[in-house]
Amino acid sequence: MPFQSFTPPRRILMGPGPTDISPRVLAALSRPTIGHLDPLFIQMMDELKSLLKYAFQTENDYTMAISAPGSAGMEACFVNLVEPGDKVIVCRNGVFGERMRENVLRSNGELITVDDPWGRAVTPEKLEAALKEHPDTKIVAFVHAETSTGAMSDAESLCRIAKQYGCLTIVDTVTSLGGIPVKVDEWQMDAVYSGSQKCLASVPGLSPVTFSAAAIEKIKQRGTPVQSWFLDQSLVMSYWAGNGKRAYHHTAPVNSLYALHEALVLLHDEGLENAWQRHRKQHDHLAQGLRALELDFIVPEAERLPQLNTIHIPDGVDDLTVRSFLLNEYNLEIGAGLGDFAGRAWRIGLLGYGARNENVSLCLKALEEALQQLG
Amino acid sequence: MPFQSFTPPRRILMGPGPTDISPRVLAALSRPTIGHLDPLFIQMMDELKSLLKYAFQTENDYTMAISAPGSAGMEACFVNLVEPGDKVIVCRNGVFGERMRENVLRSNGELITVDDPWGRAVTPEKLEAALKEHPDTKIVAFVHAETSTGAMSDAESLCRIAKQYGCLTIVDTVTSLGGIPVKVDEWQMDAVYSGSQKCLASVPGLSPVTFSAAAIEKIKQRGTPVQSWFLDQSLVMSYWAGNGKRAYHHTAPVNSLYALHEALVLLHDEGLENAWQRHRKQHDHLAQGLRALELDFIVPEAERLPQLNTIHIPDGVDDLTVRSFLLNEYNLEIGAGLGDFAGRAWRIGLLGYGARNENVSLCLKALEEALQQLG
Repeated sequence: MPFQSFTPPRRILMGPGPTDISPRVLAALSRPTIGHLDPLFIQMMDELKSLLKYAFQTENDYTMAISAPGSAGMEACFVNLVEPGDKVIVCRNGVFGERMRENVLRSNGELITVDDPWGRAVTPEKLEAALKEHPDTKIVAFVHAETSTGAMSDAESLCRIAKQYGCLTIVDTVTSLGGIPVKVDEWQMDAVYSGSQKCLASVPGLSPVTFSAAAIEKIKQRGTPVQSWFLDQSLVMSYWAGNGKRAYHHTAPVNSLYALHEALVLLHDEGLENAWQRHRKQHDHLAQGLRALELDFIVPEAERLPQLNTIHIPDGVDDLTVRSFLLNEYNLEIGAGLGDFAGRAWRIGLLGYGARNENVSLCLKALEEALQQLG
Repeated sequence: MPFQSFTPPRRILMGPGPTDISPRVLAALSRPTIGHLDPLFIQMMDELKSLLKYAFQTENDYTMAISAPGSAGMEACFVNLVEPGDKVIVCRNGVFGERMRENVLRSNGELITVDDPWGRAVTPEKLEAALKEHPDTKIVAFVHAETSTGAMSDAESLCRIAKQYGCLTIVDTVTSLGGIPVKVDEWQMDAVYSGSQKCLASVPGLSPVTFSAAAIEKIKQRGTPVQSWFLDQSLVMSYWAGNGKRAYHHTAPVNSLYALHEALVLLHDEGLENAWQRHRKQHDHLAQGLRALELDFIVPEAERLPQLNTIHIPDGVDDLTVRSFLLNEYNLEIGAGLGDFAGRAWRIGLLGYGARNENVSLCLKALEEALQQLG
């Protein structure tokens, strides 16, 4: 049986990620591989750390990229910070809050769940009530930008409340970083992870993370070893340490790191504030067009993520038929609903390089045609 | 502070990996990203499974690539197969056997270690003696090709002995797969992991794995959940399942999978037997040249990996001075010694696309010059 090279078409990616990627990032990705201990590679990693600090708005020395996707970044935060018996509050309002719960259970933490409805932000008052009820809580975890629903929570307020009760925070910024403000130092976040393939607009497979001094202290003071060798940050730290002290841990995904570096150079050139503004502007562009098509958002306006737009599928319209039409006729991908929203919602991503006029206008026109022909 | 794009030089990679990568693989890597749930991507993943089955010489249905480097592939095997209290024998003859020990401890297995000297193969008789002493052993783990020393163990015999004592096997084939015979079904291996950046000659960051029916059964019968959510194969299995049944788990590293697919198409086109022969031939080419330079192998001839050649650094020659000369004057990377061998050995890799006449001849000539000028 003969096998052929795989030559994918050029899709326009407007789902929940991976997103459209700049040709500059794809070009960086395919530059010649060099050794992961090559002095030039180590210089590049050091620069990547600086660029990630900028994206996260932090001076945290321990800021790097986990060599695996966002779910591994999430797990890295939990298995390193949660010790057996630690009480952990997870605010759950979608798929990724649920995944956080799983992580607490598998880390043998004592789990407290604070629930909010799918499609809504986390309610700060509920977190505060839970902390009053459980004053021995060690860690508060929540998702800043729920990719499954498009809801944006108030990370600043949630972190402030957690600090008032002496807790460390674990925050999922997979879909927020680069798209809306994420201010790690100003908001006093402790363990924060993201993904390479959302608003940073690089290829999927890496998870930027940053740990505050307090988080590092908790890791150093652990009485039990981290259950994961691969994600044990006390080992990974030595690998990402400054020049000359680098200890071998694993072989870094060299080319994916080139791509992330390039994506972050582009973000730095544009400027974070400008990037946030661009996402907001394209969201307004999209929202206006969706209104004209009488398509309704699931998330109330004040809690909407500009970069991830979840809309009700109108009655009588078949989810898969429309998405297949867009993919086959326009090479345009929008996202299906996840979990509770499967079959009932679409997710339109405006992530990083994908948040451009040409994408939004095309998406609106193609959706209009799909609804006319298939509605 | 301005940041620039990173433009690495074209190195000749003859260390322990990452290795030289074919331009065809780098071209595949930078093809347009498509969604990880796109029907065309799912087709590609199915084809990748077939290609990996060929590389592993197995009919195991559960054959795929972990979305993270080889160390995560190792951890995936241990955390899924080892249940708390399971007795596990680890044969240790280098860095990666030591890492296996760490994995058993962190999985709460009961650890038995069988030691062989660095630079030597695992002794089958020692394994058999340990199994006689510990007849309640559940799992035997060993490294087929020790990347830290260049020693090749007799995987077929070790697996046969383990089976005689009713054990499952976990086998590290990171540096062996594609370079020397690895016959998963014929040798009755149970949980086998590898890396993308060695003899498969793709970019680093992925870990091909395969699990036998018996290994899958052990996972299904577990009384406790797998401690890692990211590496829980009962979840990952649903993601790599056949067409139409795919359950979302994490976002696959789309472009890295393109590259691995292309590297495996190249391997399939060449044919496994031809690839093994090419590695052997280039090893002979290298060995002949090293003899002329009076450089000695560390590993006895019968236990040598053709694809990873560990040689003594001659007295009076400084390790780093020579490696820096090769890197700076020739863009040629050879590997340093690891662990016990740091400063005392070089590791010359002939991995996958790197195992070519032009690389070997250049390496010999450059080494000759380095030793003349710096010795």
